[in-house]
Amino acid sequence: MSLLVVGSIALDSVATPFGETADEPGGSAVFFSAAGSILHPVQVVGVIGSDYPLAVLKGLERRGVDLSGVEQAQGESFRWRAKYSYDLSSRETLETRLGVFAQFRPKLPEKFRNARYAFLGNIDPELQLGVLDQVAHPALVACDTMNYWIQSKRDMLLELLRHIDLLMINDSEARELSGDWNIYRAAQWVLAHGPRMVVIKQGEHGALLVDGTSIFKAPAYPLQEVFDPTGAGDAFAGGFMAYLASTDDLSPPNLRRAMIYGAAMGSFAVEAFGVKGFDNVTPADVRARVRVFKELVHFDMDGEKSA
Amino acid sequence: MSLLVVGSIALDSVATPFGETADEPGGSAVFFSAAGSILHPVQVVGVIGSDYPLAVLKGLERRGVDLSGVEQAQGESFRWRAKYSYDLSSRETLETRLGVFAQFRPKLPEKFRNARYAFLGNIDPELQLGVLDQVAHPALVACDTMNYWIQSKRDMLLELLRHIDLLMINDSEARELSGDWNIYRAAQWVLAHGPRMVVIKQGEHGALLVDGTSIFKAPAYPLQEVFDPTGAGDAFAGGFMAYLASTDDLSPPNLRRAMIYGAAMGSFAVEAFGVKGFDNVTPADVRARVRVFKELVHFDMDGEKSA
Repeated sequence: MSLLVVGSIALDSVATPFGETADEPGGSAVFFSAAGSILHPVQVVGVIGSDYPLAVLKGLERRGVDLSGVEQAQGESFRWRAKYSYDLSSRETLETRLGVFAQFRPKLPEKFRNARYAFLGNIDPELQLGVLDQVAHPALVACDTMNYWIQSKRDMLLELLRHIDLLMINDSEARELSGDWNIYRAAQWVLAHGPRMVVIKQGEHGALLVDGTSIFKAPAYPLQEVFDPTGAGDAFAGGFMAYLASTDDLSPPNLRRAMIYGAAMGSFAVEAFGVKGFDNVTPADVRARVRVFKELVHFDMDGEKSA
Repeated sequence: MSLLVVGSIALDSVATPFGETADEPGGSAVFFSAAGSILHPVQVVGVIGSDYPLAVLKGLERRGVDLSGVEQAQGESFRWRAKYSYDLSSRETLETRLGVFAQFRPKLPEKFRNARYAFLGNIDPELQLGVLDQVAHPALVACDTMNYWIQSKRDMLLELLRHIDLLMINDSEARELSGDWNIYRAAQWVLAHGPRMVVIKQGEHGALLVDGTSIFKAPAYPLQEVFDPTGAGDAFAGGFMAYLASTDDLSPPNLRRAMIYGAAMGSFAVEAFGVKGFDNVTPADVRARVRVFKELVHFDMDGEKSA
C-alpha cells in the first residue's frame, strides 16, 4: 500500500532558547518521511539544489524511503530561517529563500503513480493539483497548506479542496481560511467545501479530527522538554498517513488510532533539532507512546469497568 | 458528604463580542455552587453588600445550596468589570471594587465545620488558611488562587500549599507560581510544595490532573457557540468537587470522571452570561455531555475491541 509525499526539502536555520542550527536538513517532505518511514515505506517527490548535503537523505533511504522522485536541480536549495520565542509558543520567520523550489514542477516517477495514500505537503496549490493529476486511484489524498496560499491563491486552493479527502492544517490557518474563529465551525466550513475529513493541528494542545458525524481530539504528548517545534506538524502527518498505509484501513476507529500515531511522531520531532529526534526510534518506541496517550485520556463512564 | 465552598459573591459587568452585562451575579462561590448543586448540595461561605440582588441566591437555595454562611454586610458588594477580545481568547479587567469583600473574614457556621469536601475559591491565602482552621476533618481540600496573590502573598500561599490536597489553577498561574513555562514541570513543582494533586486549567483546551504517578487530560467540550467565558473555571471546580462529594470516592478512576464532570460544567457556564447557562440543567444533561467527552477522546489500541 504505497505512500507518497510531495513537499519541500529544505535547509533550516532555527534559533530556539536552547540553541540554534544552520542549514539543518528539514522541510515538510523530510519530516514527513523521517516519521512515516518508521511505520511504512515512503515515496518522496521534491527538489534539492546542487548544494544539498546528501547524508540525511541517505539515512532516510536506509529506512525505506524511496527518493527516486527527488530531483536535483542546478542552484541553491530551499532555505528557511526562523527564531522562536522564549516559551516556544510563537516564531518569527526571518528569511525564506526559495532557490530551486521556485521552479519546482513535481513530476512523479511511473512507479509512484499508483500510490494508494498521498500527502500533498504545503506547496503552491496549483502544484498540488498537478500532483493529483498524476496519481491514478488513491484511497486517500490528504493535503496541507499555509496562510501564504490562503491569501495569495485562494481560488486555486478552493478548487483543490474539491479534489481531496482530508485537509490537514493549523488552527490559525483554519480560522483564516474559513473566516471563523470558532474552530469547530471552521472545521464544518472546510467539510462544506469538499474534503470529507479535516485535521486541525493545535500545536502543544494536540489535534482534532472532524468528519461529518464525529469529532476526535488527540492531545499532545506530555513532554517535560521541548527543544524545537519545527516539523512537528509534518511529522504528525507522516505518522498519521504511514499508520493508515500500513494498516490500509480507513474505518473510524483506525483513523482515530492514526491520529494518535501522528501525535506520537510529533512528540519525537520536537525533542531535537531537525529530524534527529527520529534517530533510532523503533515502531516499539512509537507504540510505547501510543500507550501513554491511552493512559492520558482514558476514563470510564460511571458504573463501567476499566478497559 | 457535605461540600463547602468559600469564595467571592460578586456583581460582574462583562462585555463580550455578543453583548454585555451590568451587575450580573457572579463570583467564584456563585459559579461553583450553580454548577455543583446540580450534582450535590453545596454549603457557601461568603459576603454580600447591602445592595446585592437576592433573586439569584434564592434560585441557588431552591437547588440545594445552603447560604447560611453568607453574611450580608453594610456597604457595596464586590464588583468586577471586564472586556473580552473579539475571539474571547483574552480579557482585560477594567475595574475591581472590593467593597465589603475588603473586610471579609470567613466564619463557618457550626454545621459547616464537618465538611468532607472543601473548595477554597480565589481569595487572600491568609483567609484560605483561616477557613482551613475551621474545618475539622476534610477528606479533600482543594484551592484556587490567582496571579495577584502569587505576586503579593507568595510566602502565605506557599504555607497554604503545605495544608491542602489539591491546587486548581490556570496554566498562566502555574507558570508564574513555579517560574517554569513547561506546564508538566510546573505541575511537578506544585507537587513538590505540598499538594498531592494539581489541576491545571487550560481554558478552551481543557484541563490536566497531575499526581505523583499519572497525568490525565480532560479536553474542553466542543462548543460551536461560546458566549462568555467568565466563571468557567469556577464551574469546573464546582462540577469536579460535587461529583467527588456525591460519590465520596477519591480513587484515581473516579478523580478522572470528576475532571470530565468539571469540564462539562465549564461548558454550560460559557454558553450564557453569568450563571444563566445552568438554568434548567439536569444531572441527565450533564451526563449527556460526559458521554460526548467519552466519544471525543476514546480510541482503541490496535487489536483491542471497542469498549
